[in-house]
Amino acid sequence: MASRRNILAETAEGMAQKQREISVSEFFSKNRHLLGFDNPRKALLTTVKEAVDNALDACEEARIVPEVSVEIEQTGVSRFRIIVTDNGPGIVKAQIPQIFAKLLYGSKFHRLRMSRGQQGIGISAAGMYGQLTTGSSTVILSKTKRNKKANKIVVQIDARKNKPTILQDEEVSWEPTFPQVDANGKQCENVSYNHGTSVSIEMEASYIRGKLSVDEYLKQCAVVNPHLEILCRVRLLKKQNDDGNDGAKKDQNARIETEDAPWIVFHRVNKKLPDPPDEIKPHPHGVELGVLMQMLKDSNARTLRAALSQDFSRVGSGTALAICKHAKLSPKARPARIAQNEIEALYKAINETKLMRPPTDCLSPIGEEQIVAGLKKEIVADFYTAVTRAPMVYRGNPFQIEAGVAYAKGVQGSELSMEDPVRLMRFANRVPLLHMAGGCAITKAVTGVNWRSYGLAQPRGSFPVGPMVIMVHVASVWVPFTSESKEAIAHYPEIIKEITYCLQECGRRLSVYLKRRYKQAEMARKRDYIALYIPHLAQGIQDILNLNDRQKSIVTKNLNKMLERTHLET
Amino acid sequence: MASRRNILAETAEGMAQKQREISVSEFFSKNRHLLGFDNPRKALLTTVKEAVDNALDACEEARIVPEVSVEIEQTGVSRFRIIVTDNGPGIVKAQIPQIFAKLLYGSKFHRLRMSRGQQGIGISAAGMYGQLTTGSSTVILSKTKRNKKANKIVVQIDARKNKPTILQDEEVSWEPTFPQVDANGKQCENVSYNHGTSVSIEMEASYIRGKLSVDEYLKQCAVVNPHLEILCRVRLLKKQNDDGNDGAKKDQNARIETEDAPWIVFHRVNKKLPDPPDEIKPHPHGVELGVLMQMLKDSNARTLRAALSQDFSRVGSGTALAICKHAKLSPKARPARIAQNEIEALYKAINETKLMRPPTDCLSPIGEEQIVAGLKKEIVADFYTAVTRAPMVYRGNPFQIEAGVAYAKGVQGSELSMEDPVRLMRFANRVPLLHMAGGCAITKAVTGVNWRSYGLAQPRGSFPVGPMVIMVHVASVWVPFTSESKEAIAHYPEIIKEITYCLQECGRRLSVYLKRRYKQAEMARKRDYIALYIPHLAQGIQDILNLNDRQKSIVTKNLNKMLERTHLET
Repeated sequence: MASRRNILAETAEGMAQKQREISVSEFFSKNRHLLGFDNPRKALLTTVKEAVDNALDACEEARIVPEVSVEIEQTGVSRFRIIVTDNGPGIVKAQIPQIFAKLLYGSKFHRLRMSRGQQGIGISAAGMYGQLTTGSSTVILSKTKRNKKANKIVVQIDARKNKPTILQDEEVSWEPTFPQVDANGKQCENVSYNHGTSVSIEMEASYIRGKLSVDEYLKQCAVVNPHLEILCRVRLLKKQNDDGNDGAKKDQNARIETEDAPWIVFHRVNKKLPDPPDEIKPHPHGVELGVLMQMLKDSNARTLRAALSQDFSRVGSGTALAICKHAKLSPKARPARIAQNEIEALYKAINETKLMRPPTDCLSPIGEEQIVAGLKKEIVADFYTAVTRAPMVYRGNPFQIEAGVAYAKGVQGSELSMEDPVRLMRFANRVPLLHMAGGCAITKAVTGVNWRSYGLAQPRGSFPVGPMVIMVHVASVWVPFTSESKEAIAHYPEIIKEITYCLQECGRRLSVYLKRRYKQAEMARKRDYIALYIPHLAQGIQDILNLNDRQKSIVTKNLNKMLERTHLET
Repeated sequence: MASRRNILAETAEGMAQKQREISVSEFFSKNRHLLGFDNPRKALLTTVKEAVDNALDACEEARIVPEVSVEIEQTGVSRFRIIVTDNGPGIVKAQIPQIFAKLLYGSKFHRLRMSRGQQGIGISAAGMYGQLTTGSSTVILSKTKRNKKANKIVVQIDARKNKPTILQDEEVSWEPTFPQVDANGKQCENVSYNHGTSVSIEMEASYIRGKLSVDEYLKQCAVVNPHLEILCRVRLLKKQNDDGNDGAKKDQNARIETEDAPWIVFHRVNKKLPDPPDEIKPHPHGVELGVLMQMLKDSNARTLRAALSQDFSRVGSGTALAICKHAKLSPKARPARIAQNEIEALYKAINETKLMRPPTDCLSPIGEEQIVAGLKKEIVADFYTAVTRAPMVYRGNPFQIEAGVAYAKGVQGSELSMEDPVRLMRFANRVPLLHMAGGCAITKAVTGVNWRSYGLAQPRGSFPVGPMVIMVHVASVWVPFTSESKEAIAHYPEIIKEITYCLQECGRRLSVYLKRRYKQAEMARKRDYIALYIPHLAQGIQDILNLNDRQKSIVTKNLNKMLERTHLET
């Protein structure tokens, strides 16, 4: 084969001409499976997830009790429009194009504070995927104040430059409006707010119910966000065309009629917003040498001592002085002027100085009570428990583990079966994780716990088996995900250890409950057995003592009473 | 807790002030586990891998038979300097800083052609990690021509801007020099080239031998690159300090003495360079609507018809005309001026037109012969086979699967055991994949094949068990990796199916061999058994016929001959 072709040896100069910058949006559109857009079904879920995450983050930061609606409308055989509306604080006009049509842009990446979003990729990626598969644009409506008109902005992403292209920009009369829904799912009345945001993206997608669906995501979302009122409506095409699901090949302009679908509502349990997490400064023990250099270079402080106590958490003025001394550096040195070998000495000194653990107000756990409330709302069971552990630290980042269990043996109306493995619900910073369970630290921890010692069956190296739901929540200022699509948590040993402890505590409580249940059942069985003989015993006594029937019935009653008493005393 | 703190509700304006662009290098340094820098051991491997990949790609493009040396030198308790030198074409001075200190920069991302690198991240990421953990810089030496001096460039990456900072830039007298090593690993003579590149990075790392080590990577690299001569030397600290492995806390300036280590050489089998793969144009059926729009906008062609036949593979001028007609568009339309709904029609028309499969000269498989040669070189066994399948297509991208098997039952000197699961070696575009085997399409395919039908033991849902090595090579213009660290291949059904077919063919051949072996062994056993009775038979005949001892010995000989003949005839 080679002989037929003209083989040209490339030179350094020839190669140089081909070197080019790759924009981050080109990179991610070629690698879109890294962002959760591997296939049409997952694309739909990822889009809803990113939009809802952003809505909830914004509402909570603005201390607004969130109300969110999700509309999924089929616009072609394999095309859907997704509209997510919230009652959040709205977005300032100038920021809208960047937030929705520029990858790696946002407010959450550079701070240490627990939030759902952390990368500044999600929603722009959804818009980019929509554009890639349908050529359509992202439409944003946003209103920030009662006395101001709303902005309507239509954007696309310029993949070559990773910059927004604004196609339309106008002021409109709009306010976020949420249908209030009666018990039958029928719309009865609307409620409007004078602030909020709505984003609409059309994309190639597919809507399938089940384990990895939008419905499951919303349900789990409701479990860990008891303060959230979330509505959802899915409008599918009235008549599915015969020949399959390749919408791209259909005429998109044909008039499409959708089914009149009811709203599904996940009502809030209460209006209690989670405690707002604080933003913290980096802890010196979690900072790497290169980062330390950058921080000193960027510091506003005039002296090294001030820089240390100002830019880091858990370093007071005294500690800062001690560190300087230990590193043999002047505390009055200008931070930006410290030489590299001096910074290495400083780094060493910092790591040899004992410091308090990072502060943990930056975390906002759900809390045991709220977890149980959430589980009760969505899962029918007869035993619920939840454990919130104290915060811990990995690589300088505070994190906190919570777990809950719902057990439903023989409960009417429960969907849980005795024969199936337990169902695991994974959450990171209050966001449900549906995909990539196999690669997640939570799954690993659940498999690693010895559930047999708590009374459950468990095949070796597998999930325990039984009518149970386990939920695990990992809260952190920086959740270490295994990929940009934020679907699984990396295997940090510190995190796995904490999850294990948390699950073991849940297991012990379950074990106590199961033992009591078993004992009660055993007792009832015994009692029923003894009760069988009471009539014969009474008959015998009647025969021996020559009692009449009334006396016999008194004897029977007394024997029953005795049995009752013995039972209660045990 | 909340009550003690001053809870401030954030406004849209307040939030807007915090929105910021995130540079791709900031993103990846915070998420460095995505790039393969999760821990010190993996960091070392990833760095060697990225540097060697680049060296091999450059050599092959320039049609130079590659010679590469890898030096790993311990510079502190947990610090290493990694120097990789090649005899490639060298790099033009102006490109050096960008290639080594800018993420997402390179020549391989924008073309459709099989190569080891494809993202333009790897080597800059290694430099960034070195800088992050030790504050040190990347040092590059490069020489492109005999009569030109070499360039020495020292760079760091400016993480805020994802741009190189040049710290040193000078012309030096240097040429890549490789020690020639005798059988004992002693250096005997040097060979120099008048072109080549050397890159040196210092980082926090750890060197541990074993399954996921640099040694294993180099060994596997030699298996799939029989034309590669690769040398490696590891120099460890003479005296390990007592207190553990936290090098950051040690005095880095103390004089360090390293052991005088021998070179380890993986010699090349032959000087045959792989066929140079061609660059291809995208196949129309693999192009998404959004990409089609972009391509038309960027086209140099004057007319739509010309754009179609010029920018895509497998579209001739006639086919282009047919597509235009089918889409009801003028073939003479200016490509950049076509409206969105017209492009949608065009997209539909393209997908409804039958086209030839993409060309496959863009792939350069290793070949069955070379695979067997590679396996023989590194693995002691008594049965080798290899299968190269015909190229196939996923999402418009050509790919090709190859597999090889080495089986070693009872072979002296073999490291393979009867009781262990088979060993799997995974390769993508001639690069060994060591980590994340669990998430890889290759692992899934190996587990999915029913090896029992080929005569191997196999626990349900697991690897087969036996003294065997399986190697699988996936070659593609765009290997769909599950993360930026390029450690596992995503589960595309087309790819898994092809790997399965390929493994089944290997399995059938193995089965034939095993059956023949079994039959031979069975036969030998029978023969030995019958041979036991020959003396008794001879004795009986002697007694009956009254033969003398000489006659008896003739009878014995004849009986043995008969047995021999029967055995050979079967």
